[in-house]
Amino acid sequence: MKNIKLIVSDIDGVWTDGSFYYTKDGDSMRKFNTRDSYGIALANISKIPVLILSGEENPMVKKRMRKLGLKHIKLGVKNKFETLSNFCKYQKIKMNEVAFLGDDMNDFYLIGKVGFFACPSDAYPVIRENANKILLQAGGQGSFREFVEHILHEQGKLESAYKIYLS
Amino acid sequence: MKNIKLIVSDIDGVWTDGSFYYTKDGDSMRKFNTRDSYGIALANISKIPVLILSGEENPMVKKRMRKLGLKHIKLGVKNKFETLSNFCKYQKIKMNEVAFLGDDMNDFYLIGKVGFFACPSDAYPVIRENANKILLQAGGQGSFREFVEHILHEQGKLESAYKIYLS
Amino acid sequence: MKNIKLIVSDIDGVWTDGSFYYTKDGDSMRKFNTRDSYGIALANISKIPVLILSGEENPMVKKRMRKLGLKHIKLGVKNKFETLSNFCKYQKIKMNEVAFLGDDMNDFYLIGKVGFFACPSDAYPVIRENANKILLQAGGQGSFREFVEHILHEQGKLESAYKIYLS
Amino acid sequence: MKNIKLIVSDIDGVWTDGSFYYTKDGDSMRKFNTRDSYGIALANISKIPVLILSGEENPMVKKRMRKLGLKHIKLGVKNKFETLSNFCKYQKIKMNEVAFLGDDMNDFYLIGKVGFFACPSDAYPVIRENANKILLQAGGQGSFREFVEHILHEQGKLESAYKIYLS
Repeated sequence: MKNIKLIVSDIDGVWTDGSFYYTKDGDSMRKFNTRDSYGIALANISKIPVLILSGEENPMVKKRMRKLGLKHIKLGVKNKFETLSNFCKYQKIKMNEVAFLGDDMNDFYLIGKVGFFACPSDAYPVIRENANKILLQAGGQGSFREFVEHILHEQGKLESAYKIYLS
Repeated sequence: MKNIKLIVSDIDGVWTDGSFYYTKDGDSMRKFNTRDSYGIALANISKIPVLILSGEENPMVKKRMRKLGLKHIKLGVKNKFETLSNFCKYQKIKMNEVAFLGDDMNDFYLIGKVGFFACPSDAYPVIRENANKILLQAGGQGSFREFVEHILHEQGKLESAYKIYLS
Repeated sequence: MKNIKLIVSDIDGVWTDGSFYYTKDGDSMRKFNTRDSYGIALANISKIPVLILSGEENPMVKKRMRKLGLKHIKLGVKNKFETLSNFCKYQKIKMNEVAFLGDDMNDFYLIGKVGFFACPSDAYPVIRENANKILLQAGGQGSFREFVEHILHEQGKLESAYKIYLS
Repeated sequence: MKNIKLIVSDIDGVWTDGSFYYTKDGDSMRKFNTRDSYGIALANISKIPVLILSGEENPMVKKRMRKLGLKHIKLGVKNKFETLSNFCKYQKIKMNEVAFLGDDMNDFYLIGKVGFFACPSDAYPVIRENANKILLQAGGQGSFREFVEHILHEQGKLESAYKIYLS
């Protein structure tokens, strides 16, 4: 945990409860939770970069992530392991320095490959059984914030990050 | 279970929690769950056709089902038994080779007529009392995925389907 | 219960969970549940008229109630007792022949005035303490359907109503 | 409690469950609960002014608060303590005459500074541990109403306020 240098997160089922809101125009809305924006703020303060890695490609997620000021957003990713490996090589980060938050089978092959793999409390059973940690929060309830806080707490940086945040 | 050759599913209360979102233009939005798209992928890999059979007719459901690549979508169906019987005759599938997922009284007369009838955990009481199986998931929480996984598991095909999915 | 000749229902907190969805255009969306449409169908079959009596006035509720074929829709009602009394006089129905479903303090003065007053499981505490019956379902989860089914069951008409519905 | 002369409330996570609904146009919708409008009505009847103090700035919240007839709405507030102090000075209200309802870390520094600090049942753990009172209701479930009712009850004004409301 001490050596985590990159935080990576899935979106659907993690930042959301897995819901897609469909109108006559198709997939049109996503529900996010304000709590997760604290996770981004805390990671920024602690200078740990955040990468979003999602199998789905849609403008609502892009909008939300850009509003949060994120630079590394990869959507519509078919092979998360390959995309993450390439990103790490380019950024000169080792795979065991990566903490990953995912909830379902398209995240499965990252378990054991990254340094730390966590999942929301309502993740798919096979993911829950194999993850390094099951968070207390469900997807869409602030699980990303809890994930970041857990990493910073283990690194002894959480209290000082909140002090800077609140000043 | 071994002989199931067709998977049939209702939508409202099964793929959703029964909610209708109304704007000034009327019935305008439905909430689906990304988990159920795994059910479609697994059925496709296992070459079991999927038929959607819903009493309601609306463009949001059609959009979602088409995005999932489904060919057999029957909406606004008044008599599900008749529509299903005709479909089966045309496709040369017997009624006892059909697995059906439904949640409410307009699905009631299919119980005992199809090979296997399951319902979400929050289905109407009379349906829960008479179904062959009550799933663990509620409507809108991934009950369709659980339904497909249950069938494939009983047929010994689930693990290989996930291997193909993840490759 | 045998003498109930009119079913009256509030909307917000009864047909919904009390939620208002606001966009930049203001109050723009309501979430209803498909289960409650069974309640209307069963009341129609049993020839018991339904009156909607809501303190709020908005086009989404009107749309939904009209789609269900309801004739008696009174929205934006400031004094529910007065409006209901006048309606009953005009329809030649006595107040003790009325069954009312409400959830909050603007329904309070109808308790004891109508023949039967029920509330959803998550109604306001004072309402729950004074109602003739607390339903099992919460607002927006099908409490109106349960209310109608309860009345028809007590009148010995529920089974035959479902038989007609399903034929 | 007897001396509370101003009611102040956060919005996100208090009047809502913390959800942001994103469309392709960005942050586009908020879900409120009709129950909280009772809180405003009761405060008005009891002649206790209400101030909304939110870190977020958006048109949906403004619309909702204006529809409720509120005069004091401060959104996009970076330093809630400073903004509240200035408001109190201008209104000639002491900080210990203020009751505050908040749920997260950007409300933290108000604990101990105001006369009474309460939080919804699902507030951030650190807030729950330090608040004067944890309400029974979660954010978006009517926690603001419960907050106002609690204050009026302690001041012996709740019953008379409801009597005026219902007359």
